[in-house]
Amino acid sequence: MKEVLYQKISASLSEQIKNGTLKTGDKMPSLRTLHKEYGVSMNTAIQAYLELEANGLIVSRPQSGYYVSYKPAYLSVPSVSTPSNQAKSESVETLISKVYSTLSNKDVTRFSLGVPENELLPIAKLNKELVNAMRDLTGSGTEYEEIQGNRKLRRDIARLTYTWNGNLSEDDIVTTAGAMNAISFGLMALTQKGDTIAVESPVYFGILQLAKSLGLKVIELPTHPVAGIEPDALKKVLSKIKACILVSNFNNPLGSCMPDEHKMEVVKMLSERGIPLIEDDLYGDVYFGNSRPKPCKAFDEEGLVLWSGSVSKTLAPGYRVGWLAPGKFKDKIVHQKLIHTVSSTTITQETIANFLEKGRYEHHLRKLRTELHANSLQFARAVAEYFPEGSKISQPQGGFMLWVELDKRIDTTELYDLAIRQKISIAPGRMFSLQNQFTNCMRLSYGQRWSEQIDNKLKQLGRIAKGLL
Amino acid sequence: MKEVLYQKISASLSEQIKNGTLKTGDKMPSLRTLHKEYGVSMNTAIQAYLELEANGLIVSRPQSGYYVSYKPAYLSVPSVSTPSNQAKSESVETLISKVYSTLSNKDVTRFSLGVPENELLPIAKLNKELVNAMRDLTGSGTEYEEIQGNRKLRRDIARLTYTWNGNLSEDDIVTTAGAMNAISFGLMALTQKGDTIAVESPVYFGILQLAKSLGLKVIELPTHPVAGIEPDALKKVLSKIKACILVSNFNNPLGSCMPDEHKMEVVKMLSERGIPLIEDDLYGDVYFGNSRPKPCKAFDEEGLVLWSGSVSKTLAPGYRVGWLAPGKFKDKIVHQKLIHTVSSTTITQETIANFLEKGRYEHHLRKLRTELHANSLQFARAVAEYFPEGSKISQPQGGFMLWVELDKRIDTTELYDLAIRQKISIAPGRMFSLQNQFTNCMRLSYGQRWSEQIDNKLKQLGRIAKGLL
Repeated sequence: MKEVLYQKISASLSEQIKNGTLKTGDKMPSLRTLHKEYGVSMNTAIQAYLELEANGLIVSRPQSGYYVSYKPAYLSVPSVSTPSNQAKSESVETLISKVYSTLSNKDVTRFSLGVPENELLPIAKLNKELVNAMRDLTGSGTEYEEIQGNRKLRRDIARLTYTWNGNLSEDDIVTTAGAMNAISFGLMALTQKGDTIAVESPVYFGILQLAKSLGLKVIELPTHPVAGIEPDALKKVLSKIKACILVSNFNNPLGSCMPDEHKMEVVKMLSERGIPLIEDDLYGDVYFGNSRPKPCKAFDEEGLVLWSGSVSKTLAPGYRVGWLAPGKFKDKIVHQKLIHTVSSTTITQETIANFLEKGRYEHHLRKLRTELHANSLQFARAVAEYFPEGSKISQPQGGFMLWVELDKRIDTTELYDLAIRQKISIAPGRMFSLQNQFTNCMRLSYGQRWSEQIDNKLKQLGRIAKGLL
Repeated sequence: MKEVLYQKISASLSEQIKNGTLKTGDKMPSLRTLHKEYGVSMNTAIQAYLELEANGLIVSRPQSGYYVSYKPAYLSVPSVSTPSNQAKSESVETLISKVYSTLSNKDVTRFSLGVPENELLPIAKLNKELVNAMRDLTGSGTEYEEIQGNRKLRRDIARLTYTWNGNLSEDDIVTTAGAMNAISFGLMALTQKGDTIAVESPVYFGILQLAKSLGLKVIELPTHPVAGIEPDALKKVLSKIKACILVSNFNNPLGSCMPDEHKMEVVKMLSERGIPLIEDDLYGDVYFGNSRPKPCKAFDEEGLVLWSGSVSKTLAPGYRVGWLAPGKFKDKIVHQKLIHTVSSTTITQETIANFLEKGRYEHHLRKLRTELHANSLQFARAVAEYFPEGSKISQPQGGFMLWVELDKRIDTTELYDLAIRQKISIAPGRMFSLQNQFTNCMRLSYGQRWSEQIDNKLKQLGRIAKGLL
C-alpha cells in the first residue's frame, strides 16, 4: 500500500516535469508541503523524491531542497577536445578585445561575462566590513601592509582549506591582486622565455595571453567536458614541459571537474619529474554537490603545487583580492610580488579578512551555490529548447560557466557579431585556444539572476543560431 | 637711515641664528611681528629678511613664511658617484631583506622608511572620500573597472599635468598599482632578457631588483647629488642600452633634481636613437621651491617618455594607486596590465579621484611641502651638529630623503647593525647599487613629524657613527 502511494506521487510529479508544468531549475515543493497536500507521511514524501532523483528528474541541494533537473534526451555532452600536441603561439587578440569592449555596456545581456553580476553579491555586508576596516586599521588603510599580505586574511584563507584537509597555515599563503596576478607571479618565478607549459583546452584566454607575452610555448591538452584533462595526455608531453597550469575544479570555460583519482595521478606524475603545477582553484567553492571538490594541492607531498584562488568570482571582482599557496616556491613568489607591486591594497584585503572571519562567507556561498545551480539547470533547459537540434552542452557541477557546442556549420564568431546587434554578448569558442579550433563553440555565463528576460534572450540567441544553418 | 635700520635688524637675527637661539628649520617671526616688535615699517622688515636670505641664513616658503636654513660651513655635498660603466648584476638581497624586516616595528625610529609617516597624511579627508566612493560606485566598488583605469582619476591626473604644461588627456594615462608597478609594466613591455638599461647611481634598490629579475643588465650612471645624472655620461652608453630609467625630480635616495637643460638634452639624445625613457616622477609634487619642476616628459615630442607617478608618497601608500603616461607605448602597457592583473582596485582609485577632484590635493601638498622642507633643514642641521666631522649631505629641494656620506672608514652596514640595537633604522648606501660602492653612505628619510625625540635619535645615531672611527 505504502509503496504504491509514493510511486503514484512520483509518477504525477514526473508527468508535471515532462509536460513543463514544473520547469528545469524550479524549486520542488518542500517535503512538508507534499506531506500536507497529498496527505501522506513524511517518509512517503521522501520516498517519492528519492525515486524522482534516481530517475534524474530532480536534484537535491543541501540545506535548500529539491530542484527540477530534467534534460530532454537529445541534449548531449560536447566532444573531448583534440588539439594538436605541438606547442603553438598564434593570436586571437582582436577577437578578445572586441568581446571585452562590450563588457561595460549594461544594456547588453552579457552571457560573455566572466564574473557574477552584482545582484548575486553580498554588497551591503561587504560595505559594513569596509567601514570597519577603515576604522580599525592604523592609518585607515593608507599604510603599506606586509609584503606577503594581510596576516588576518592569510589566516582565514588557510582556515578555509580545512574543508579539503589543506592543512595550510598563514605562513604558506601569499596574497595577490586576484588569481591571474597569482598565476603571473607563478609563471614569472618558474619559467624562462622559450620554455613550454601545458594547459587545458579550451582554456581561459587570459592564461594563453600571459604565456604568450612571457615568450612561453603552450601545449593544449585534450580535455573532457565533464572530467577535465586526461592524465594520459599529460603523461605524453611531460618531457617537454617546465610547468603545468590547471583549472581543476569547474574549469573556465568548460565547467569540468577532475575526479580525485585523476588529480592524484597528475600530481604523482608531475612530482616524479619535479614539474610544478600552478592550480587555479578560483571556482572550487562554488560546487553544486554535497561537498567541496579537493584541489590537486590536497595530493601534493613535495610542495610542487602552487594553489591559487580569489574572491573575484564569489564576492568582489573589483577588490582585487586573490592568493597563492606556493609550496616550496614561497620565497620566489614573495620576491616577485615585492619587485612588481611592493604590496597589496591594504583596505580591500582587510575588508575580505573581516568578512571571512565572521563566517559570512559560508553563509553567502550557500545562497550563491543554490542560485547558480538553479541557473545552470535553467540554461541547460533553454539551450535544449531553443538552440538548433544537435546542440551539446557541458554539465557543470559548479561555477557559473557552461560550454555549448553547436552544429559544425555555425561559426560562433559570426554568431557573436549578429547577437551583439541584438544586445546579446557571448564568448566565442575561438577565444579559448591558440589553435584554430572551437569555432562552433561558445561559453555562456549563467552568473546573473534568472528572469523571463534572460529566458527570452536565450530564445533570441537560439533563433539567431538557427538562422546560421 | 632706513638702510641702517634693516641691516641692524638682520644683524641681530643673524646673531640669533648663528648662536642657535633660532635653530635651523625654525619658522622665523612673521613680517607683521617684526614690524610690530621692532617698530619698523613692513618694507624695512622685508628688506631685513631679503638680506638674511641673500646670506643663506633663511629661506622663504610660498604662502608660509621664512625658515632658518643655516648650515655650518664645513657641511658639504657628497661627491658625484663614479660607478663603473660596465653592466653588472650582483646581489644585495640579504641586506635589503634585513632592512625591510624592521620596517613594521614601530618602536624603531625609522629613518629608513620610504614613505611619509601617517601623521603627515590627510587620513580623515581620505576616509570621507572612501565612504563617498562606496556610496557612489555601482556595486560599491565590487565591480571590475575599465582595464585602462578609473576614468575620473585619469582625468584628474591629466589635469594636474597642466602645472608643467603636460597637455595630457585621460586617454594618455593608464592607472597602475603604484609607481613600481608602472615601471614593471614599462620594462616588461619594452625590454627582453639580456638587454641593457641605464639608471642613476645610487638608485632606488627596487629598480635594481626588478631589472635583475627580468634578466636585464644595468649600467649605473655617474650622478651628481644636486643635479642628477650627467647627460654626457649617458651619451657614452647610448649604443648599449634598450631603455633608460630616471627619477629625475628629487631622486630617491639622493634628493637630486635634474636642471631643465639636462632634461631637455637627455630627451633629445634618447629620441635621436629611439630609446624609451621610463621616468619615475613620484616625488615631483613635493618641491620646496616656487614651482613644480618639469619632468623630462615635458620635453618629449616623440612619445618616447613613459611618465609615471603615484600617490604613495603623498597620500596613501597602502591604496596602491599609481599611473603611467606611456606615450606611444600605450597599447603595450594596457596589454601588460590586462594579462598580469586584469584591472586595478576599484574603490581606492575612486577615492583618490574624489580627493583630487575637490582640489584637496593642492591644499594638502602645500602643508606637506612646508613641513618636509622644515624637516629637511632640521636634519641638515642635526647632521652638521652631531655626525662625525667631514660628513657630507645632499641638499634635497624636494621629496623626503637625503643622502649622507660619512668618513671612508665608516661602513654603514655595520652602522645599521649597531643602530638597530638602539632602535634606530637607517638605509645603508650599499643597498642602492649593484656594485660594491656607497659603503660609507646612507639614506635618511625625514618624512616624519619633527620632534625633540627625532633630534635625540639623530644625536644618538651620530654618536654611534663617531664610535666607528
